[in-house]
Amino acid sequence: MTSTSTIMDSNSFKAKDLASLDKATAALVARREVLGPSYRLFYQKPLHFVRGKGTRLYTADGEEYLDAYNNIPSLGHSHPKVAQAVSQQLGLINTHTRYLHEGILDYAEDLLSTLPGAIDRIMFLLSGSEANDLAVRIAKAASGSTGILVTQEAYHGNTDLIAKLSPAIGADQPMAVDMRMIPTPDTYRLGTGDIGQWMAGCVKEQIDDLRRHGIGFAGILLDSIFSSDGVFPDDAGFLRPVIDLVHEEGGFYIADEVQPGFARTGEAFWGFERHGIVPDIVTMGKPMANGIACSGVATKAEVLSAFAEGSPYFNTFAGSPVAMAAASATLAAIREDGLQENAKAIGSSLKEGLQELARSFPELGDVRGAGLFLGLEIVVPGSTRPDHATAVKLIEEMRERHVLVSLCGPAGNVVKVRPPLAFSNSDKDLFLSAFEGSLKALGA
Amino acid sequence: MTSTSTIMDSNSFKAKDLASLDKATAALVARREVLGPSYRLFYQKPLHFVRGKGTRLYTADGEEYLDAYNNIPSLGHSHPKVAQAVSQQLGLINTHTRYLHEGILDYAEDLLSTLPGAIDRIMFLLSGSEANDLAVRIAKAASGSTGILVTQEAYHGNTDLIAKLSPAIGADQPMAVDMRMIPTPDTYRLGTGDIGQWMAGCVKEQIDDLRRHGIGFAGILLDSIFSSDGVFPDDAGFLRPVIDLVHEEGGFYIADEVQPGFARTGEAFWGFERHGIVPDIVTMGKPMANGIACSGVATKAEVLSAFAEGSPYFNTFAGSPVAMAAASATLAAIREDGLQENAKAIGSSLKEGLQELARSFPELGDVRGAGLFLGLEIVVPGSTRPDHATAVKLIEEMRERHVLVSLCGPAGNVVKVRPPLAFSNSDKDLFLSAFEGSLKALGA
Repeated sequence: MTSTSTIMDSNSFKAKDLASLDKATAALVARREVLGPSYRLFYQKPLHFVRGKGTRLYTADGEEYLDAYNNIPSLGHSHPKVAQAVSQQLGLINTHTRYLHEGILDYAEDLLSTLPGAIDRIMFLLSGSEANDLAVRIAKAASGSTGILVTQEAYHGNTDLIAKLSPAIGADQPMAVDMRMIPTPDTYRLGTGDIGQWMAGCVKEQIDDLRRHGIGFAGILLDSIFSSDGVFPDDAGFLRPVIDLVHEEGGFYIADEVQPGFARTGEAFWGFERHGIVPDIVTMGKPMANGIACSGVATKAEVLSAFAEGSPYFNTFAGSPVAMAAASATLAAIREDGLQENAKAIGSSLKEGLQELARSFPELGDVRGAGLFLGLEIVVPGSTRPDHATAVKLIEEMRERHVLVSLCGPAGNVVKVRPPLAFSNSDKDLFLSAFEGSLKALGA
Repeated sequence: MTSTSTIMDSNSFKAKDLASLDKATAALVARREVLGPSYRLFYQKPLHFVRGKGTRLYTADGEEYLDAYNNIPSLGHSHPKVAQAVSQQLGLINTHTRYLHEGILDYAEDLLSTLPGAIDRIMFLLSGSEANDLAVRIAKAASGSTGILVTQEAYHGNTDLIAKLSPAIGADQPMAVDMRMIPTPDTYRLGTGDIGQWMAGCVKEQIDDLRRHGIGFAGILLDSIFSSDGVFPDDAGFLRPVIDLVHEEGGFYIADEVQPGFARTGEAFWGFERHGIVPDIVTMGKPMANGIACSGVATKAEVLSAFAEGSPYFNTFAGSPVAMAAASATLAAIREDGLQENAKAIGSSLKEGLQELARSFPELGDVRGAGLFLGLEIVVPGSTRPDHATAVKLIEEMRERHVLVSLCGPAGNVVKVRPPLAFSNSDKDLFLSAFEGSLKALGA
């Protein structure tokens, strides 16, 4: 675990390794100086991909990699239906929401049909960061208060407002004075038995602390599967007492579905659905248009009104005919390609295979997940102590075997498996074989 | 002038006019309820465009309109080179900045070559809002202070941070406690003679007021042509004493080039260049990729370092191969199609034609602009008093003549002419003829 950042830095390329790179890679890395010091590359030997198809990515040298990490190309890389929809729309028109266009309305209605009936309004934006920024502003306006709760390793985005609600960016990122953090619902170490009651207790404590400082409670912003906290899906339903308490306390519940949404968890289309709860506000992004910039804030008319009545909001590129064409094609393909069912079936069988491996490799302390979103906890054998260094070695071994994964969790020791939803049975077999080989290589 | 908002509301469709619409339009407007109350449509009779080509837009009924307002499709609507670049890249790969890709580097270097040599870093984002949000954070980190100045009718975006620095959103939008507003440099009413010294005086006053309240001065955020304030380009150079003062006071100068940038002003590629000044930070967006979401923050390594050293920043869709392909094709086409020269020549001749009209129509109080960005001040004849109601009538008359323009300025009385840069000589003639007809119709 580094002193500055975990989630965003834990398996990044470090400048000290520049000399170890081949000449072509080193030249590209050096050219990135113009982007400034905030940009990060994955891996000790960064990868240079020039082509993608389905679950595979290809380097400039023609080497093939299995993508078990990227959720943006949810339908698969370079999906022909999205490419076709975008190309066709670009040839027709691409204006903005101050003129009428059917694309945004058709998609808005279709998208709302996937959400609980109480959620009847949808606004479009470009990034998950913009979506969470707007959602928090809506919750603050609706509550008349400013106090927001998040988990201690949350990542919700990069705007000024949201960076200050994203402790995972690192210790150098100051948190807002009117926010509080609750502990990660770490079921591996706390058990799943009464995790919901435990979490509700933590929430109550922080609401009380906000009020003790004269700060009213606006609401809670939670990733429905706690992606950056380390992936905690179980037991489905544990969020119910938490959200009941939030509502009793007069706050609003914002479900951040940027990572778990759009069928990824297999058991449901939205991550919060697994918990049997209805959010006041839902934010979404990443896989929404398979790589074209598109995000959204869905909410209830009565929650939106305090922010929106009398307050115009315009977002230049958001909800444009091209973005809506890409998003519509993506939603249609999720259905046509049966990707939710696929996420459920392949995810479940992948989890079983990994649990089987865990019996032979004590470093693999926990295997958890829902659908095609898994967290694999790497620990010091015989304990539950996070082992960041071994986790980094493991994903570098996976890279050597041409399989892409990454890390998350406060200690940077949880392998994050979050492939395109078009992950096939043979992709799964390839993954398991590479993972077993990588675990074996650790001991070698 | 309405009580809530000016720039964003002044010529919007109002719900009370629903009954006056034809059935098909009314049905589309009604369906927009799902988008909530923050969305706005232009015109008393909103327009439904289904196709665009060059400077023309076509309604569902096949009616043709001349676009003299939209700057996003800077090369023209549905430009084939951008459509082709995007389609080709979508068929290859569209990942993110944590893998190496030459597209972002080639474009970054090319883009920086258009900027002053001192500006040597560029970060990519999606919207002008995100760009300004990051720019202000960079200025705050570099200065160690939080006080920001903007003009009194500024619009810089819609994130929480930037909305609080955007008084043009309307009186319902609370401004940040650590910002101050300076008056619009209204050369029509104040003259151009010593506008720079006058503005520097206003800036000094507000910096002093910030300090009186214990708030250090971080910098000033200025649209280089004061787009939402009413378009004030002259005399080129008037910003020099203002920026000299900002630097003397230890602040940073952020040039918001989201509207004036990318060759629009004709005389220069960037709006600030006309003033002979070098910003510390430059933000850009709208026309950058001819309609594909893309924005940027360009700055100096030494300005960026306080924010960026140790602080990772990742933006999912920004700098993606597809966004970079669109932006590269756009920059290439601006050069190949000679659009800066075109903006200068056609803009100058359009301004002359309008100045000619002003001699016959006393409602047209002032005609000003640089390149293809003009502001036409509509006033009570014989005075400099803004006439919002007449300005609204005028742009509705223009709509009847199938020419698109909009309004800006604190009183919502300045006609904003900001067409695609591919505006031709015959487009200009058509515009002038429609404008003359509209002015005549006002008196009828």
